[in-house]
Amino acid sequence: MSAAQSVKPGTLHGVGLGPGDPDLMTVRARRLLEGARHVAYFRKAGRKGHALTIAEDFLPKDAIHFPMEYPVTTEIPLGDPRYNEALSEFYAQVTMHLRALLISGEDVVVPCEGDPFFYGSFMHIYERLKDVVPVEVTPAVTGMSAAWTASGHPITWGDDVLTVLMATLPEEVLTARMRDADALVVMKIGRNMAKVRTALRAAGLYDRAWLVEYASQEGQTVQRLRDAGEGITPYFSIVLVHGQGRRP
Amino acid sequence: MSAAQSVKPGTLHGVGLGPGDPDLMTVRARRLLEGARHVAYFRKAGRKGHALTIAEDFLPKDAIHFPMEYPVTTEIPLGDPRYNEALSEFYAQVTMHLRALLISGEDVVVPCEGDPFFYGSFMHIYERLKDVVPVEVTPAVTGMSAAWTASGHPITWGDDVLTVLMATLPEEVLTARMRDADALVVMKIGRNMAKVRTALRAAGLYDRAWLVEYASQEGQTVQRLRDAGEGITPYFSIVLVHGQGRRP
Ligand SMILES: C[S@@+](CC[C@H](N)C(=O)[O-])C[C@H]1O[C@@H](n2cnc3c(N)ncnc32)[C@H](O)[C@@H]1O
Ligand SMILES: C[S@@+](CC[C@H](N)C(=O)[O-])C[C@H]1O[C@@H](n2cnc3c(N)ncnc32)[C@H](O)[C@@H]1O
Repeated sequence: MSAAQSVKPGTLHGVGLGPGDPDLMTVRARRLLEGARHVAYFRKAGRKGHALTIAEDFLPKDAIHFPMEYPVTTEIPLGDPRYNEALSEFYAQVTMHLRALLISGEDVVVPCEGDPFFYGSFMHIYERLKDVVPVEVTPAVTGMSAAWTASGHPITWGDDVLTVLMATLPEEVLTARMRDADALVVMKIGRNMAKVRTALRAAGLYDRAWLVEYASQEGQTVQRLRDAGEGITPYFSIVLVHGQGRRP
Repeated sequence: MSAAQSVKPGTLHGVGLGPGDPDLMTVRARRLLEGARHVAYFRKAGRKGHALTIAEDFLPKDAIHFPMEYPVTTEIPLGDPRYNEALSEFYAQVTMHLRALLISGEDVVVPCEGDPFFYGSFMHIYERLKDVVPVEVTPAVTGMSAAWTASGHPITWGDDVLTVLMATLPEEVLTARMRDADALVVMKIGRNMAKVRTALRAAGLYDRAWLVEYASQEGQTVQRLRDAGEGITPYFSIVLVHGQGRRP
């Protein structure tokens, strides 16, 4: 038996950071960040990255950083199989690095925006490593919870149905789902804002829609969507339509 | 001007406690509980109440308690207008008490299970007091986040649509919504479990459904719904169907 085999593998921690306000981190997330020796986070090449920005004040000064930089895929259309291939290769590469660290006995903390298992990038490394090393996931306050709290109106009443949509869906799908929704959350808006507006109008929800940018973060804005300018919204943007269900 | 008018009103705090594990409270919730002088919480008559159970270890010993005990409505059917009337009168009464405290300058902390603005009872006092006194709401980790984390599988991938349903909805509505869902969360199950099973079967989702009881709490269980006994589930129960969307 080799020396390497006798080492107990480290634990991979997917740590939900919550929506951005450090006060809205869980007690466990705070503790895991403060104790991190190896920290790995996703970001765009050349950027600091949202997860690091939220986490950095709590990381030990001498933590060892492993930024996982997404490949540049802007020239590949989302539907193109090469898009998935590029991402898939990227996840394989970062997984290889993390795997080596973990197998050597080191714990690795991966800070994640919001809740890791809710449309998070961490899920891709989780699936690749969960049968190889111990993995622990810390749930967190989602961006949408911070958004509806900031809006000053509860999102769901009585037996309202809540529908969560990604703005990357085709316009017809968005419209159909919106028509059926009692309460609505739309995420990943960015360059899809015009499509979201069109779908909301077609579903008769436009005048009830709110836009929340940077929920719980510096620069937070809350406004009726109809009052918002036509421009591109920041990455941290959510559109909400509040439910109107039974309320005694 | 009377003395009462010159007093600055206190703040009503709706404090999300998260799913139950005290480690999953936010830093802000923990601080608000620890500083509470007046604490008000919903519960069934004769019970300790879930919110108090989660919060009590953090409340000062000498905090002043105001339990808000739901009227007993078990003999009134849910659709009956008298059901809404009984609840409405109850909310009016507790609001009157809280209002007096707040107007007299006292802050009041209302601990809430999960996130206050997500199907929470706090919303009813919020609506009645938000234009009268300052109100602050602290979002929290939802029960469903703890449930999908406990299940060991991410809830949504790529552009999966997430649908959240209350088991109190009629069976046909449940079935129709389930047929459309990519990823599914069903809450408020209790005595509606048989209906939920029938609807899941009709929608072809039964074999993919999981039951999570007491997510993040003592006694947590995670199992395939088809392996769970036919009995009544506890109050803290959630049924999940994980999305199967695009994953590179
Ligand atoms: C890849 S998803 C990750 C969601 C995250 N795991 C969560 O639990 O909120 C990214 C999207 O989440 C939304 N989002 C997350 N945090 C937000 C915040 N603080 N304010 C506004 N939107 C936010 C935005 O719509 C963004 O495009
Ligand atoms: C009135 S709703 C309140 C939801 C809460 N505000 C939240 O954010 O999770 C009560 C329902 O939430 C679900 N729930 C909340 N916490 C839970 C937990 N820890 N485990 C399982 N179910 C939970 C159950 O379905 C329960 O019937």
